[in-house]
Amino acid sequence: MSMAIWAIIACGALSIVYGVWAIQSVMAADAGNQRMQEIAGAIQEGAQAYLSRQYTTIGIVGIVIFVIVAWLLSITVAIGFAIGAILSAAAGFIGMLVSVRANVRTTQASSLSLSAGLAIAFRAGAVTGLLVAGLALLGVAVYYLVLTGMMGYAPGDRTVVDALVALGFGASLISIFARLGGGIFTKGADVGGDLVGKVEAGIPEDDPRNPATIADNVGDNVGDCAGMAADLFETYVVTVVATMVLGAIFFAGQDVLQSALLYPLAIGAVCVATSIIGTFFVRLGANQSIMGALYKGFIATGVLSAIALYPVTAMLLGTDTVLTASNGVSFTGLDLFLCGLIGLVVTALIIVVTEYYTGTGYRPVKSIASASVTGHGTNVIQGLAVSMEATAVPAIIIIAGIIITYSLAGLFGIAIAVTTMLALAGMVVALDAFGPVTDNAGGIAEMSDLPADVRKTTDALDAVGNTTKAVTKGYAIGSAGLGALVLFAAYTEDLKYFIANAAQYPYFNGVNLDFSLSNPYVVVGLFFGGLLPYLFGSMGMMAVGRAGGAIVEEVRRQFRDKPGIMQGTERPDYGAAVDLLTKAAIKEMVIPSLLPVLSPIVMFVVINAIAGKSAAFSAVGAMLLGVIVTGLFVAISMTAGGGAWDNAKKYIEDGHYGGKGSEAHKAAVTGDTVGDPYKDTAGPAVNPMIKITNIVALLLLAVLAH
Amino acid sequence: MSMAIWAIIACGALSIVYGVWAIQSVMAADAGNQRMQEIAGAIQEGAQAYLSRQYTTIGIVGIVIFVIVAWLLSITVAIGFAIGAILSAAAGFIGMLVSVRANVRTTQASSLSLSAGLAIAFRAGAVTGLLVAGLALLGVAVYYLVLTGMMGYAPGDRTVVDALVALGFGASLISIFARLGGGIFTKGADVGGDLVGKVEAGIPEDDPRNPATIADNVGDNVGDCAGMAADLFETYVVTVVATMVLGAIFFAGQDVLQSALLYPLAIGAVCVATSIIGTFFVRLGANQSIMGALYKGFIATGVLSAIALYPVTAMLLGTDTVLTASNGVSFTGLDLFLCGLIGLVVTALIIVVTEYYTGTGYRPVKSIASASVTGHGTNVIQGLAVSMEATAVPAIIIIAGIIITYSLAGLFGIAIAVTTMLALAGMVVALDAFGPVTDNAGGIAEMSDLPADVRKTTDALDAVGNTTKAVTKGYAIGSAGLGALVLFAAYTEDLKYFIANAAQYPYFNGVNLDFSLSNPYVVVGLFFGGLLPYLFGSMGMMAVGRAGGAIVEEVRRQFRDKPGIMQGTERPDYGAAVDLLTKAAIKEMVIPSLLPVLSPIVMFVVINAIAGKSAAFSAVGAMLLGVIVTGLFVAISMTAGGGAWDNAKKYIEDGHYGGKGSEAHKAAVTGDTVGDPYKDTAGPAVNPMIKITNIVALLLLAVLAH
Repeated sequence: MSMAIWAIIACGALSIVYGVWAIQSVMAADAGNQRMQEIAGAIQEGAQAYLSRQYTTIGIVGIVIFVIVAWLLSITVAIGFAIGAILSAAAGFIGMLVSVRANVRTTQASSLSLSAGLAIAFRAGAVTGLLVAGLALLGVAVYYLVLTGMMGYAPGDRTVVDALVALGFGASLISIFARLGGGIFTKGADVGGDLVGKVEAGIPEDDPRNPATIADNVGDNVGDCAGMAADLFETYVVTVVATMVLGAIFFAGQDVLQSALLYPLAIGAVCVATSIIGTFFVRLGANQSIMGALYKGFIATGVLSAIALYPVTAMLLGTDTVLTASNGVSFTGLDLFLCGLIGLVVTALIIVVTEYYTGTGYRPVKSIASASVTGHGTNVIQGLAVSMEATAVPAIIIIAGIIITYSLAGLFGIAIAVTTMLALAGMVVALDAFGPVTDNAGGIAEMSDLPADVRKTTDALDAVGNTTKAVTKGYAIGSAGLGALVLFAAYTEDLKYFIANAAQYPYFNGVNLDFSLSNPYVVVGLFFGGLLPYLFGSMGMMAVGRAGGAIVEEVRRQFRDKPGIMQGTERPDYGAAVDLLTKAAIKEMVIPSLLPVLSPIVMFVVINAIAGKSAAFSAVGAMLLGVIVTGLFVAISMTAGGGAWDNAKKYIEDGHYGGKGSEAHKAAVTGDTVGDPYKDTAGPAVNPMIKITNIVALLLLAVLAH
Repeated sequence: MSMAIWAIIACGALSIVYGVWAIQSVMAADAGNQRMQEIAGAIQEGAQAYLSRQYTTIGIVGIVIFVIVAWLLSITVAIGFAIGAILSAAAGFIGMLVSVRANVRTTQASSLSLSAGLAIAFRAGAVTGLLVAGLALLGVAVYYLVLTGMMGYAPGDRTVVDALVALGFGASLISIFARLGGGIFTKGADVGGDLVGKVEAGIPEDDPRNPATIADNVGDNVGDCAGMAADLFETYVVTVVATMVLGAIFFAGQDVLQSALLYPLAIGAVCVATSIIGTFFVRLGANQSIMGALYKGFIATGVLSAIALYPVTAMLLGTDTVLTASNGVSFTGLDLFLCGLIGLVVTALIIVVTEYYTGTGYRPVKSIASASVTGHGTNVIQGLAVSMEATAVPAIIIIAGIIITYSLAGLFGIAIAVTTMLALAGMVVALDAFGPVTDNAGGIAEMSDLPADVRKTTDALDAVGNTTKAVTKGYAIGSAGLGALVLFAAYTEDLKYFIANAAQYPYFNGVNLDFSLSNPYVVVGLFFGGLLPYLFGSMGMMAVGRAGGAIVEEVRRQFRDKPGIMQGTERPDYGAAVDLLTKAAIKEMVIPSLLPVLSPIVMFVVINAIAGKSAAFSAVGAMLLGVIVTGLFVAISMTAGGGAWDNAKKYIEDGHYGGKGSEAHKAAVTGDTVGDPYKDTAGPAVNPMIKITNIVALLLLAVLAH
């Protein structure tokens, strides 16, 4: 069995080997002319400065939490927290460093051929993607090995469980800050820059005369690249950990315990390998379809994963050995393999549905474009309607996934399906991180006055980047919703465990667990949980509004103070806009991020004071589910709606309904502006918000048990 | 005890006496000059034509359901259904008839004085309000008397329960169609008329040259007046019935049963009386504050109700007699009285919060107005952020209400609090129905070229009407959310009852009730329920978009075919626009309305086929709660956000940020357009949607038991 853990760690290490190779291969490419390098340098500098400040701020919060965790639980647990936080930050930081160097190389390569541009942009994305999956896997696997192998804890020991949960919490903390801070930065720049540039000054996007343009490019990297990396790193870690916690409870005292705990890690390991293989399938075909090239890689990864899952299952658990969980549910290894396949199918279906709702070829986007003809108002109405409609099919897919996997193998079956879904994160993040590289590449082409056909190539890459970004968000939210369900199951099973062993954990003496919907404290918890995504989303949107407004003022000031900017004789002060946004984003991210961290604690304390422990545990549990229920709909509607608005604008720019400059186009620009904080700030930040609420609740149990 | 029921019926009858008197007093007023009467005639004709067609369509659906109910249950139950439907329709229809006659009289009275205009408009609203409360009370009380007194059923007999639930279902059916149909009509006219009139042709609102202007005025009556009447009629009936169902289960076999069943009716009865008294407190003070005058009436009703509740409780239940419900919870009459007071406090708090979020004097509306300066996009972003934020405090008020009343008297305490909250419906609907009258009065003043100071008076009345409409919506949704919780409790208690008496109800043999959140079918139910308000809201918004688009085409056609319209030499064909919207609204309302009716049935059948009865009952129960959880947030955010957008526009029109015609104003008009279907179609229609899902589930149980 110790063979298995070393094999898992080897797969994790493979991702680092791939990363080093891919970084070298990207860096070896031509970085273009002086002007291009100058612009790229400004973006690099801004992104690095922002991330350094962001991580410094998070670091301060992190150190406080580290001390609290060490004090309340133990130093072993606190180290888990630190590992999760540091590795998550590392994946985001390295990914961003590569991304801001790949952008200019993509521009340069695009001047040679589409295929060359695609190769560099995708390889840069793949660095981030595989580091996310690989470091997440390594973090959990190595610390698990240290705890059980070297420190001698039993596999299902509470310290192991607590340390792994804390590792997830570390990842969550980075994730919520990075998602929200990055989201406020990127959309503040985007909204503010567009308003004052496109609308007031009448200059195109990415025009070098706009002082906010470098900030906009910086934002793509810190939001879409580092933010998404932190988000999926967290979902990955948290899901694997929650699955292991469930395994530890379900198979406590059984021979199969060790294998059951390694099984989710093994799924992650094998999929790191298939993701690396998949990256080599990304190749432009004869039809020159970029999306097709990317999908080839994704499909290869999916198919190979489905195949490889079988031997992994057979070796660790056997396919027809019957496993019986402590709650009485029995299933075979084959059932778990089937649950894994369902996870892959759910991933594929969610991607298809998201593409339908955000792609320019289908009814939803076309309907928004067509509604733009009658004005700004009707564009927004139709966009909101589409955003709400877009929640229905993903919800039904998730419902079907729950029903099927539960019938196959109970709660553990659901957990394995989600784990498999997330095991593809390496490939999915690669597709997503491709987006900011191509977006920047276009910006650099524009700003350095390269020939129009270079811009055309980068535009083609960028359009696909928009779709992959939307698709990844759909995947991120679907998996977050399902992952949170596994966390919720871990909460309830953990609670049951503590109550059953109340002799050992005296705090849980006399606690009577009642999660029934007819318990009013359950209803109270559902409502309170339900309001969190709304309040949080509102805070995110308002923060973007304020940051965007500040950028408008700053740009106006620069235009006023330096009249030469518009004539092209004076250089705008790009750094001032970057600095301003850095400060704004850091300031704005703190309070909303603390909302999900503190809510479970406040809820517990208040209800405990009013109605006692039992009611408080019920209310907190229900709150976790309330957050998932409304959070899923809020997040899907925001990200799908935002993507649809964006592409409705692109559809009009492609020459429909009057094309660029028409009244319909102006209305579509309004919709796109509304969609920006929807899809890139508030919507995606709801993901980590959902999970952090859940993981804090799990930690709360650990603290109360201690 | 039979004294009590007759006293209740007498109070109900009092509302009809008041109605007759108030109608006569309105009709006796001067109806203005020839031109004014002509315009009012067109509005009357259009409103009557629309409502007749709407009720005919609902009638067809209703007859089908009547036959099904009679066949599946019994004719007695089906008659209950018919009573609910017919009385609800009657309250809406009569209210609308008065409203479309009071509008022109309000215009005329406004040419004399503000106080005269206010008197007529409020009295017309009070007719609708008191008919809603009075007819709802009479319907339930009289049919209850017939069933238990004349037909000899025992007070808690299943036939009585089923018949009353069916009565609620009848009211629900009218409500969902009327809300949605009326909402699509009114906002189709508003959005379409504004787009083509204000934006394209550059003519002001209510300009007689706009062919959609009569349709817009018709819409106010069929949406805000008849629609809101049906909505609150339903919530009233459904809450009282659910409270009675709970009482029938909790006090089965006890001496107190009869009194417990009459208690909610008695609360309704005494509040009809206090509402009538309250109407006479509506009087313009020395400060000429219209809102102040209305609040005086509302506060008088609230205070008198609080006082009157005590003797009613003392007489029916005694204040210190201990009642013990069959689930073991004990409480005194005094506890129930306190629950009633909490209901009144919740009402007051929700009104205050709604006014904060939608009033021009506070931060939310001002922030939207200020965001309008930077453009359409930022206006919409800020509006959406405000709409989401606006859900937090009402949710917390509801949570606090649940916790306090549950601690006082268990589930029955919650039910009594909601009943008391709804007992004020007479007064609240009066405030709301005042809105369309004043809105129309302004339109008539504009169209008949009355002197500017008349328009100024009607504008002052109209501005207050906007606030009262928003406030009523907050109340309607808060009470609907709480009312639905009572319905959900009725579902679970009903189910427990059938399972406990499975010998008599063989279908429930072996059903194992598990509403625990760790049951995946509960999670499935929550998700499926959660998606319904999103899907339903989306359908409503799209329907308005289509109806508005059709109006744009129609108006453009008229401007093209009759060039004299814009010169004022040719009369537009107002009737064509009314006809078009009538057809559109009727067509569009059917499918979304069937969504909540069919969903519980489909959910039950599907899950029953997959996983058996027990899972199906759990899933349907959880679905009911899922619908409430997301529905509450969707509805509050939509209605509060819409109101805030509307008033942000008004705030700018009052001269802030450049006033009328400025760029900020244009952006604010966009926000207002977006807010229209939010606040007047999709948002309010979520109310009946939530309740109809719940009541269909209750009926489903009755059918399965049969």
